[in-house]
Parts: sequence; C-alpha cells; structure tokens
Amino acid sequence: MIHSIVWLKHECTVQTVEGRRNWGILERLNAGEVVIGDGGFVIALEKRGYVKAGPWTPEATVTHPEAVRQLHREFLRAGANVMQTFTFYSSDDKLENRGQSLKYTGAQINEAACDLAKEVASEGDALVAGGVCQTPSYLSCKSETEVKAIFKKQMEVYIKKNVDFLIAEYFEHVEEAEWAVQVLKTGGKPVAASMCIGPEGDMHGVSPAECAVRLVKAGAQIIGVNCHFDPMTCVQAVKMMKAGVEKAGLKAHYMVQPLAYHTPDCNCQGFIDLPEFPFALEPRILTRWDMHKYAREAYKVGIRFIGGCCGFEPYHIRAVAEELAPERGIMPPGSEKHGMWGSALEMHTKPWVRARSRREYWENVMPASGRPKCPSLSTPECWGVTKGHADLLQHKEATSTQEMKHVLEMQKKAKSSA
Amino acid sequence: MIHSIVWLKHECTVQTVEGRRNWGILERLNAGEVVIGDGGFVIALEKRGYVKAGPWTPEATVTHPEAVRQLHREFLRAGANVMQTFTFYSSDDKLENRGQSLKYTGAQINEAACDLAKEVASEGDALVAGGVCQTPSYLSCKSETEVKAIFKKQMEVYIKKNVDFLIAEYFEHVEEAEWAVQVLKTGGKPVAASMCIGPEGDMHGVSPAECAVRLVKAGAQIIGVNCHFDPMTCVQAVKMMKAGVEKAGLKAHYMVQPLAYHTPDCNCQGFIDLPEFPFALEPRILTRWDMHKYAREAYKVGIRFIGGCCGFEPYHIRAVAEELAPERGIMPPGSEKHGMWGSALEMHTKPWVRARSRREYWENVMPASGRPKCPSLSTPECWGVTKGHADLLQHKEATSTQEMKHVLEMQKKAKSSA
Amino acid sequence: MIHSIVWLKHECTVQTVEGRRNWGILERLNAGEVVIGDGGFVIALEKRGYVKAGPWTPEATVTHPEAVRQLHREFLRAGANVMQTFTFYSSDDKLENRGQSLKYTGAQINEAACDLAKEVASEGDALVAGGVCQTPSYLSCKSETEVKAIFKKQMEVYIKKNVDFLIAEYFEHVEEAEWAVQVLKTGGKPVAASMCIGPEGDMHGVSPAECAVRLVKAGAQIIGVNCHFDPMTCVQAVKMMKAGVEKAGLKAHYMVQPLAYHTPDCNCQGFIDLPEFPFALEPRILTRWDMHKYAREAYKVGIRFIGGCCGFEPYHIRAVAEELAPERGIMPPGSEKHGMWGSALEMHTKPWVRARSRREYWENVMPASGRPKCPSLSTPECWGVTKGHADLLQHKEATSTQEMKHVLEMQKKAKSSA
Amino acid sequence: MIHSIVWLKHECTVQTVEGRRNWGILERLNAGEVVIGDGGFVIALEKRGYVKAGPWTPEATVTHPEAVRQLHREFLRAGANVMQTFTFYSSDDKLENRGQSLKYTGAQINEAACDLAKEVASEGDALVAGGVCQTPSYLSCKSETEVKAIFKKQMEVYIKKNVDFLIAEYFEHVEEAEWAVQVLKTGGKPVAASMCIGPEGDMHGVSPAECAVRLVKAGAQIIGVNCHFDPMTCVQAVKMMKAGVEKAGLKAHYMVQPLAYHTPDCNCQGFIDLPEFPFALEPRILTRWDMHKYAREAYKVGIRFIGGCCGFEPYHIRAVAEELAPERGIMPPGSEKHGMWGSALEMHTKPWVRARSRREYWENVMPASGRPKCPSLSTPECWGVTKGHADLLQHKEATSTQEMKHVLEMQKKAKSSA
Repeated sequence: MIHSIVWLKHECTVQTVEGRRNWGILERLNAGEVVIGDGGFVIALEKRGYVKAGPWTPEATVTHPEAVRQLHREFLRAGANVMQTFTFYSSDDKLENRGQSLKYTGAQINEAACDLAKEVASEGDALVAGGVCQTPSYLSCKSETEVKAIFKKQMEVYIKKNVDFLIAEYFEHVEEAEWAVQVLKTGGKPVAASMCIGPEGDMHGVSPAECAVRLVKAGAQIIGVNCHFDPMTCVQAVKMMKAGVEKAGLKAHYMVQPLAYHTPDCNCQGFIDLPEFPFALEPRILTRWDMHKYAREAYKVGIRFIGGCCGFEPYHIRAVAEELAPERGIMPPGSEKHGMWGSALEMHTKPWVRARSRREYWENVMPASGRPKCPSLSTPECWGVTKGHADLLQHKEATSTQEMKHVLEMQKKAKSSA
Repeated sequence: MIHSIVWLKHECTVQTVEGRRNWGILERLNAGEVVIGDGGFVIALEKRGYVKAGPWTPEATVTHPEAVRQLHREFLRAGANVMQTFTFYSSDDKLENRGQSLKYTGAQINEAACDLAKEVASEGDALVAGGVCQTPSYLSCKSETEVKAIFKKQMEVYIKKNVDFLIAEYFEHVEEAEWAVQVLKTGGKPVAASMCIGPEGDMHGVSPAECAVRLVKAGAQIIGVNCHFDPMTCVQAVKMMKAGVEKAGLKAHYMVQPLAYHTPDCNCQGFIDLPEFPFALEPRILTRWDMHKYAREAYKVGIRFIGGCCGFEPYHIRAVAEELAPERGIMPPGSEKHGMWGSALEMHTKPWVRARSRREYWENVMPASGRPKCPSLSTPECWGVTKGHADLLQHKEATSTQEMKHVLEMQKKAKSSA
Repeated sequence: MIHSIVWLKHECTVQTVEGRRNWGILERLNAGEVVIGDGGFVIALEKRGYVKAGPWTPEATVTHPEAVRQLHREFLRAGANVMQTFTFYSSDDKLENRGQSLKYTGAQINEAACDLAKEVASEGDALVAGGVCQTPSYLSCKSETEVKAIFKKQMEVYIKKNVDFLIAEYFEHVEEAEWAVQVLKTGGKPVAASMCIGPEGDMHGVSPAECAVRLVKAGAQIIGVNCHFDPMTCVQAVKMMKAGVEKAGLKAHYMVQPLAYHTPDCNCQGFIDLPEFPFALEPRILTRWDMHKYAREAYKVGIRFIGGCCGFEPYHIRAVAEELAPERGIMPPGSEKHGMWGSALEMHTKPWVRARSRREYWENVMPASGRPKCPSLSTPECWGVTKGHADLLQHKEATSTQEMKHVLEMQKKAKSSA
Repeated sequence: MIHSIVWLKHECTVQTVEGRRNWGILERLNAGEVVIGDGGFVIALEKRGYVKAGPWTPEATVTHPEAVRQLHREFLRAGANVMQTFTFYSSDDKLENRGQSLKYTGAQINEAACDLAKEVASEGDALVAGGVCQTPSYLSCKSETEVKAIFKKQMEVYIKKNVDFLIAEYFEHVEEAEWAVQVLKTGGKPVAASMCIGPEGDMHGVSPAECAVRLVKAGAQIIGVNCHFDPMTCVQAVKMMKAGVEKAGLKAHYMVQPLAYHTPDCNCQGFIDLPEFPFALEPRILTRWDMHKYAREAYKVGIRFIGGCCGFEPYHIRAVAEELAPERGIMPPGSEKHGMWGSALEMHTKPWVRARSRREYWENVMPASGRPKCPSLSTPECWGVTKGHADLLQHKEATSTQEMKHVLEMQKKAKSSA
C-alpha cells in the first residue's frame, strides 16, 4: 500500500526536487513540506569513541573528521534534510570549562564542522544549519553583552562558511535564547530557536507558550524544543508553544528534536536529573516503532521540522522518514536496507521470525527490559539549584576536591529526602 | 589507582609489543595475554543503515566499504585485538536464500571484507580473522560433502588473502561445527570454533561439555560460544565447556563473544525466540558497567579471548578493555575520550552530575526502563521446530503466501498455548 | 521512644476518655483529636466469602452477622474510633438492580447493620456512623425528589437506631452528594460528606475545590474523599478541597478514607477503570509501611478523620493508628500483637530475619512484585460514558444477552484505540 | 456448563456423602476423592490482629477464640475438607523462645485449638487434623530423645481430643521430619508429612525424592510440601517426591499446601530469605485466577490433598474448590457469593465492568503492580547459615543487644556481596 503511494508520488516528487533545487528551509516549510532533521551527535559519537561524556564538546571535527563525516552520511541516508554542524557546546568558554584543555579553538572546530556538514549535504537533498547553544557564561551570570559576544563569534564562522540557516538550540532559559536569536538575526539567514524544555516550561518557570511568543518576537521564524525529554513530551511542549503563538496572533513554523529515551519520570530539568544520566540510559532507548508513533503525532500536531537529539541513531531517523513517506512522497535512501514494518523478516531462516514480518506484530509488541531486579521508573534528582546558585557557577579550573566533597554531600542529602 | 598501574606497566608493554610484533593468536594466548575481540557488525550496521534485518548478509563490504571500515576502526580504537572479516552469512546458499537477489557473489563480498579488515588491523595492534558460520544447506539436510564444499569455498578466500587465523562461529549444531573445523584445519592457520549455545547445549541437546570435546577433537585450538545469550550466560556455557575439556584430559584456549542484551528469559534457542527479536531489543541493551562485570567474570573463569557479538557497540568493547587494563597493562586508544568509571563527569556544568563521577555510583545504579506498561521478562516462543522439520527447509524462492499463512497460524497456536 | 510518649500521655488520656465519654464526632474534631476511621467492608468480606463482587451489597448483616461482627471487632481492635454501619449500596433500587433477587429489604439489612455496629462500638472507644451512597436511580436520571426519597428511607433507619452521626459517601457526582447531605441534615445529627473523586474532580468535571464548597454550603460539617484512589492521591484531593473551602471563607473538618491499592495509573474514574478491577488488584495492595506514610501525610495536610476504604484490612488501620500514636497519646489494642516497626522480629528464629527488626529496614524496602512478566502500570479503560448515556441506565431485569454483546464490542473497540 | 455438571453430580454426591459420613482421610484419598485443605492461619490472623509476627505462635486459640473460629468457618465455607488445629509452633520450647512470655502452656493452647477445629468441622464436611512442626530444639542441636519428647507431648493432646488424623508439617530438615513421623505413628491415627522445601531439597541438600522415600519409610501415608514457595514450585517439588517414591517401588498419597505468594526469586530457603519477608509481601499475593491454574496443575500431577499455607485467604481456597468442582461434583458453600469466573460482574452498574464478566478476560489479565519504582524480582539473602551454626542456636532469653549488633553486621556484609 505504502509502496504504491510512494511510487505514484515519486514522479512529481522528482520534478519538485528539480524545481526546488535551491529552496531554503523557509521555502520548504512555507510550501508545507515535511523537513526531516538529523539525530544526536554527542551521544552517538560518545558511544563510537570520539566524544567525552562530561564536557561533551565536538573537537572530533578536527581530530577525527572521518567519524563525524560518517555519521552525517548515515543520517542523510536515513532521510535527514538538515545537516546540523557538529558544533554543540563549541563556544570558547565551554571548551575550556572546568579544566578541559584542548589544542583547538572554537573557531577551528566550528569551521571544520561546517566543511563536513556541507560536504555531506551536497551528496543529497539536505540543507546545512549552523548552531549555537546555551553557555557557561550565562549560567555564571555574565552580562548580556558578554553572552551575546560569544554567540556572535560562533555565528561569524557560519556566515563565512555560508550555511543555509541558523539554529539557536538547547536553551534552558528563554532569556538566553532570546539573546541568541537577536544575535543570529543579524546574520541575515533564517533563524530557528529550540529550547530544551518540557510542558512545565523553562528553568525560571516561564511557560512554553510564553517562551514561544518571546522567541517569535525576538525574530525566530521556526520555534520548538529539542533534547531533555522523550518524543511525546516534546511534541506536547511544542503543541503548547503553538497554542501560545496562535493565541498571540503571531505566526511561526514548528520544530521538534527530542531524546530517543523514554522519560516519563522526569521533572522540569529533563533527563539530566535522572539517576541514569548519562551512562545507564540504555533501557530507555526507543524502538523504531516508537518512532513511527512519534512522527505521526508530531505531524498531527502541525510540526513540520521533525528530527531528533540525544539517543537518536540513524535507524530512528529512518523510521521517522518511513512513517511520513506517504506525506513526503519519498522513501529515504537507507530504506533499501530495511523492510517497511519488518517485512524483510520474510527472508529469515526461522519460521517463527518470518511470522513477525508485519506491522500488526511490531505495533503491539511490549518490549521487556530483561532486568527483573530494576524498576521501570526512577526518582529524578531535584536539588533545587537554579541559575544564580553558587553551585552552578562555572570556572576554567578543574573541579576541586573541595567542590567534589560538597556535591557528594548534596547528593547524599538529596537521596535521603527523596 | 588504575592510572598508576597502567603507567607502570606501560613501558614493559611497549617493549612487549615490539617483541611480539609478529605474534599470532596462539602465541598471544599461550603467553597468557588477554585478547580483546571486536563487537557485532550486523546489528550495528543495521542501525547505521547498511545491513538488512532478515537476510542479515554483509554485502556492505562491497556497496558501502566506508561504513564497514569506520566500524572496524571504532572497535580497534575501543581496544579490539581482532578484526573479524565482515563475512557473516556470506556463503552463496545464504546470500540467495528466500528471494534475496544480490549483484555480488560470496567471493566478491568476502574478498572486500578481508581487504577492509586488513587495512584497519594494520593501523593498530590487531589480528585478522576470517570466519564461516552455519549454512542454510545444513538446515535443509544437505550432505556433509555439500556443506563442507561451502566452507571450503569461503576458506579459500581467507587463505588467498592471508588472514591471521580462522573462526568457525555461530553454530547451533555441533555436527555442522565439526565439519567446519575439519575444513578450516586444512588451511594451515590456527582455528577457533564458537557455537551459539547456552548451558542447555546445542539444538539436538548435546551438552556444552560434549560439544567442547568434539570441537577440540576436530582440531580447534580455541573454543567457546558467541551470540544468542547474554554475557553471564555465555560465560557460564564456556565454563561448562572448559570443565568438559579438562575432564577429557584435553587442552584448549577459550573465547566468548556474547550478546550485549540481557536475556534471562531465553530458552535453548537464545534471543531469536524472544518476541522482541530483532526490532525491539533496545531495553535489554547492556550498559558499560554491565560490561565491566562481564569482563571480570570471563577473566575469572579462565577465558582469555573476550569480545562481543550482536548488540556490542564500540563503547562496550572499550569497557571490557578498561576493566582488564590492569591485567593487560594498557588502556585502549578510545579511552582518551572516556573518564574511567565516569570520572570525566567532574567537568559537567551541573553539580548533581559531577556528583556521579565515581565508580561506586555507577556500580550500584539500577537503571529504570522508562516503560512502566511493559514487563521485565518475556515468554520466548517455543515452536519445537528443529533441523529436519519442513518449516526449516530453505529455498531460493521468496517465502510464498502459503508459507506465510502457515507460519502465522503456527504463531497464533504457539501464543495461545504459552 | 514511642513507648514512653504513649505511656506518659496515657494517664491524661484515660482521664480525657472519662471526661469525653459522651463526646460526639464534632466535639472530638473540634478539640483537635485525631479520629481513626475503619477499613473497607465489601472487599474484605468478599474475600472472606460473604459479599458478592458485582452487586457488592451488604445482605451479610442478616445472613452472616457473625462475619460482619468479627470484622467490626478487628477494626476496633486496630484502633478505629468509628464503626460505619455496613450499609453500602443498601438502597432498595440497588439491592434489586440487574436481576439480583434478595430475600431482604433495605430496611432489614440496615437495621441489622446498625445493631452490629452499635454492639461492637460499645466494646471500645468508637462512634457509630450510618451511611448512604450513590444510587442507580441518579445514574438512571431519576428526579431529585425520587433520589432524595431513597436517602430519606435509609436515614430513617439510622435515626430510629440512634446512630452517632451520618455519612454521605462514595459519590461520583457532587449534585447527588448535595441532595444526600440536604436529606441527612434533616436528621438532626452531624453530617459528613465524602466523594469518590481525585484531583480531577467529579464525573462532570467539577473541581475538588468547588465540590467542597458546595458540600459545606449544603450543610456538611465534615468533608473529604473516599475510595477510588490510593492514599496519596486522596490526600491530595482533600488538600484541594480544603484550599477551596478556606478560599471561600468557609469552615469544615476534613476526612479521608482511600483505597489500600496503589493507583498511579488511574484517570478520573478511579480504580473501576483499571483492567485489574476487581479481581486482580492484589499486586497493588499497600504494605503497612505505606500506611505509615499515608497517615503522616494526611495529618500534615490537616485532615483529622483518617480511615480507609476498599482494600483496607485491620492491619492497615492499625498502622495508621501506630503512626499517629504520638499525637493521639495511645496505642491501639491490636498493637499488643505487633512490634512497632517490626521490632518483634527480634524473636524470630532466623538471624537474618532478626536483622530486619527495625524502622530503617522497613522504611526503605522496595517490594518486588514476583511477577516479571507483568507490567508495573496499566492502561485504564476510558469509554467516555457518563451519566445520561444509555449504557449507564440501570434496570431490575438481569443484564440481557444483547446488552452483554454490546459491551463486549465496546470493550474490544476501547482496547484497540488504547 | 459447570453448573449442569455440578447439578447432575449433586444427587449422587449427596448419596456419597451419606455413604461416607464416617470416612477418614485415607478412605477419601483411596477412593480417589480430591480433599481440599484449608489456608494459612498465622498470616491471616496476623493481619486481623491476633498473631504476632516474629514468634508466630497461636495463643489466640485461648485469648481470642472467636477470631480463630471465624477463620475456620471461612475456610470451611470456601470448600475446605480439613480443619487443621491452629497449633503452629505451639511446642513449649518455641512458645518461650527469645523472651516471649505467655500465660499459657502449649497444652492449653493446643486443647483450645482442637475444640475450635472440631466445633467448626462438625458444621460441614471436614476432618480435623492435629499438627506438629519443626522445633527450636532441633535447630539448637538437641538430641533425638529430647526432640521426640516435644512431639509426643503435643500428640497426646490430639489423641485425647480424638482428632481424625495427624500432620507433621513445616520441616526444613528431613531428619527432624522423620522423628516427628515416628512419634506420630504411635498415635494410631493416619499420618501425613509435609516439608517446607522446594526442588532443591532440604537444608542439608537432601533431594525431594530422597526426603519422600525416607518419610514413607518412616510411616507417613501422605507426603508432600507446604509453605516457603509459591504454588507451582511446590507442585514441582511434590512431583519430584512422587517420582522418587514410585522409583523406590513404594506407595503414598500426596499433598501440597503452598504459599499464596509468587516467589520465582527464592533460593532453597524459600520466602524467609526474601527481603520482603514478612511485612512487604503484598505485591506477590496470588489472585484467584492464579489459584485456578495451581489447582489444575496439582490435580494433573496426581496430588489429591490440595490446600494452602501462608497467604491463603478464604477466597483462594474457594478458587481451588471452584476449579476442581467438575472433578468433585460439588461447589463450595461460599460460591453462593461468587460468580464463577467473574460472572456476577454482569450485575455491576458500569458497562465496562460488566464486560469483564467472563473467563477469557480473567485468564489473560496481567496485573500491574502499581509500583513503578519497585523491581519485579528481589535478591534473596543467602547468609549460608545452617543448623549447627551458632547464629541458629535458640534460647529463652530475649535477643541481646550484642546479638542484634552482630546480625546487623552480617546483614550489611551479605548485602554488599549480593
């Protein structure tokens, strides 16, 4: 059934592709197209051995470009229409935070990231987006001027490299996100803004609706959320943003790039607060079938820029692209190696596995954890520490023994009151 | 503590490396070295978009060599001392089973695989192993002569490409494994034999101890198990094999390359029988901390060739290498991007995450599934269909509608009697 | 420690008991006393063999008075200060609903219930409360006059038997609860009103705060919730009621009598909607230690009439009484057979069980379900059928085959859309 | 369907009842009848407030006879054909163990127990069984003579009160069970012997098969297991006993009286070792539907004396009796208040509950725990302390502070090695 749809639409799609060869992100969204985002780089490359959990910085663009290029290609093959430069946390204040000493500047890392993203994007139907995200400087209560200077420095690389559009993403505080948007707007490219918040709003309690309105007023043409929560929670938060924007009589496009982890037990801080973060999240990883449900729900809500963040592997993005194949009129390249809804299991040698080669089977499977001594939900930490608190001030020096002693005491205290 | 050990041993290790530059697998094992295997290619590359679940064949060596090369590199970086050629299920009878039509012969795929493995192995301290595995022909009751011819054809490529040693792996029936070993022995290289069985033994009920004795008698110098069961179960099965070999007054080296999935609910057929196979296994994925326990246990039991199979990502292999760093006197290259036992979390911006930068925290975490509506164990399917049964006969033609109807009825029947 | 408190307060308590021998419910609450309610009769007696699940009617007061008397005694012994007459669902329209034919009238059953409650109350420090609850007539859209006549008929028995106070409980709709309170007020006894709602409010969406205000305005002196939700959820709902009453500048006493089942997965209809209701709720039963937490929380919120409903066994009530022993200055009689916080385990023959004879152990135990193939949460049914819908109309005749066929179709449909 | 069977058989059943009015336990079993046992007294009466967890002794027969009588009646009503005297742990050495000081002797308690059991048995079709169980004296390494004297003292009460037969139950060591049987045999009544062991055998590692043979050789006519494990595990153990007896060419009848708790995670010591014992076992309680499966399985295995132990409430016994109604030709009296397989839910007011009034629904329900932060399996304690170890020696004095300190250290040590 899907196949015929794809085929029928394919001819006109090919024409469309020709016709829109130079379309940017806004042209695509304005035309009602579904734009598939890419997945998460830091977590995927941490597992592959190229990113250090803790600082989470992207120096691999310089040190191991082949690994970054390969991941870009896999997401492209999975159907992604956006190659985000691998520049997460790549501001100079973050790169040298808490004792991390790298041989490369933010500018070097970001230039290399642009080159890689552009190289791969040119191999398919994808745009390149340069990104900035929240800074230790904001967390450390630096001034608006100081923080904006950091964003400007990063943006200048993206403009020089002529990316297709800009994304301010992974912001916990709407104020800092506004600052970022205001800076990015000066670049003359389309600007998207994405916060890492859930339905409870930002870390200062600003609701998703109000965050959305403020971001649109700051100049963002595309708004949404990324990271920190599971797909359904993120879609819910974007839905609230959309309602806020519409209620305010404003207009925007919407994006969502959630975690690929189930996080029903999170509080407003998201998966950072879960005791499993970041090294024991495995049991929470979404299946491809969960992704079908996510893509469908995001589409229903009116979101048209649909991608992923931490935890999203290429096959997760492919599942999003396969679910929306009827709407998009095209299957992702990577589906040549994937039977829709498990249909290629018909080629398995074992008869009981062949019997699983169908949608009804996979839509209804309730996957066991294989860990009977573990719970299904955790109690998130909730230290009540927000921006301004001494424990959130950052510094260049390594975390001191004194600081470590202090946080261990805090941890013990938090646990006993849970 | 670990650091000092590594450092102290490092000098002599470097010397050793020089001294044993040409050591093969047997020299290493005879000298008491720990040899780290690589992880699983089919599952990892399926998620990356290059292997089709169902046939599970490795034509990517020809079609997407950069993807295969990159995965080899990641395992090498994670500490692997063996690069297995990506030649799983790459016998001609399997490549064209049930309607799969590929443009490449087994020989073409296997040659490309050897080239990739050798290229990457030369970048570090690794050996290349060429492998054969069970065949549809055996399952379809073909003769010993016919089955052996298939193994011979594959082996000839490995000999031509001059790999370091040979592995007969993923055998459910000891009889077929013996045939494979007998053929591989003619190649003049060291031979390892690894069955995909658990403590209950092979599909005909032959115990691990007896399987072990028969494999050693057939000529295998290294024996063990791979795939189908979780690490602790596989270690247990190898322990039983070792006891059998010792009781018989024989000698062997031991290897283990288990799943990276928790499978406490499996029966003798392993994870194939779990309802989550192959598309909903995510919640069962082991954490890196689980891998520390596995590596330690395997070492204690006396196994010295320790690697992984389906589900093992590079960070899993790195965890094995890190756990055994004191014994090996060396840390894997990839650990430059990994704080031992989470120590790099000291560089995290959030104080409660910095508090997790220690071994005691991660050793005791009980990871939640985030899926409260799912169970922790499943009921494996148990059709009672073994070699010789009509439903296990294979053929070149695609699975027919009639066959599909039949297996769906079988599935329904099996479920109602569960 | 607890013991000394109890002892110290005991003397004055005895005096107080003398002094307040004739105190009613309001005198006790006005004086700030904690009043312990009893537990659930229908579920406990169903398990003992005297109540039929389905109709859930209390004819056992006539047919098996010794069983009802014994349960009263157990709750008295556990510390209950209120003996509720076992008159649940004992209105004539309910007693003959859907084909149930009993030999006894509502009046006969209720008179017997009063006699039993009074007999046992006189054996200790307890008051007798006569109760009415929601009616099939209201659900079937009968008029206010008709419904009020039903309450009046029941009340007349309680007045004749001279109970100490009246309770209108287990109402899903605040309108019907108001009618009940208005009728009960004519009896000249103190009136309590308790709805079976959670934080989402009644079945028509009236919030707990508004329900509370309306009940107080109707004349209830004590208000709260009972049944349908677990203790913490019920306490939360009463907290919302209290906030509503205080915001409206009104005054009331508060009561809570929750389920003894964990129900985090309920929607507004409560445990009725859970697929486990009523015959597979076992895994959800609260431990005595859960009850300690409940009692403490209810007390903190300002609730002073604290009891239980379905699922509460005598030992649950005893745990409530033990937790509040310091405040009440007295331990329940039944504690002679219970070591506070497990202390009597010191007398166990096994040393590892003796090691469990302490509060810290039991406060932190995380009890396993022993059911690894079952989930931890369910999906409640949600048919969207409310008062006025044809499927909720009741009748004297037995449920017809046609009706059963219809509900099975509804069930199938609901499941597929879950 | 069941109803017609019951009705058809009823006439002949009545005749049979007349004809066998004086049949004892052996006549019934010899005739192939199914004998339903009663449920657990200590746990049920602990929850009702009459037994102290820790010593677990039955002085309630003297102090609260009405509570004991009521529970007997409930089990009789549920279908039990055996009233076991409530004399568990009622040997003088146990009654005064570890500082417990009671006003009553074992003889007084046991005489009262006999009177109560006989009174209720006479109200229906039930036999009275007097019981002895393991002693602190055996655990404390007293001599065979001393231990046998304890059994003799208890038996003399039963003979004086003329019970119908004798049961030696709840023995962890077959040696002590043999001693008990040898003593009981001198009473001239039929003797049953039941050990609290699972498939791993007794605490000294004696297999179920060997235990069985030794008990039969000691003179027991009925053998089996009770307590310590869940129904399916106990049935499995009895199956092994039966195989042992048959292999030895001996003959016996078989009995099983398991826990009403799911215990898949137990080791050989049974539920005593679970961290939830005895105050957090609630989530493990079996549903009535679990009991149907148990009764059917026990019957299939050839067990004909089928009852329950700790955790069995009257409704559990009723479920056993209902499942075996076709074989027995009679429904239990208590079923007048129970719709077979939930059929009485047809009288419920809510349509979605009426839809649950059928066997298929309840047979397939997978009950959620409602505790998402708890695991599904626990790690049993395993101190490795067996008879002879100083920690298992008992004494009259209360457990000393020194002893408590010691066991807490042991507990901590055991936990860290788990």
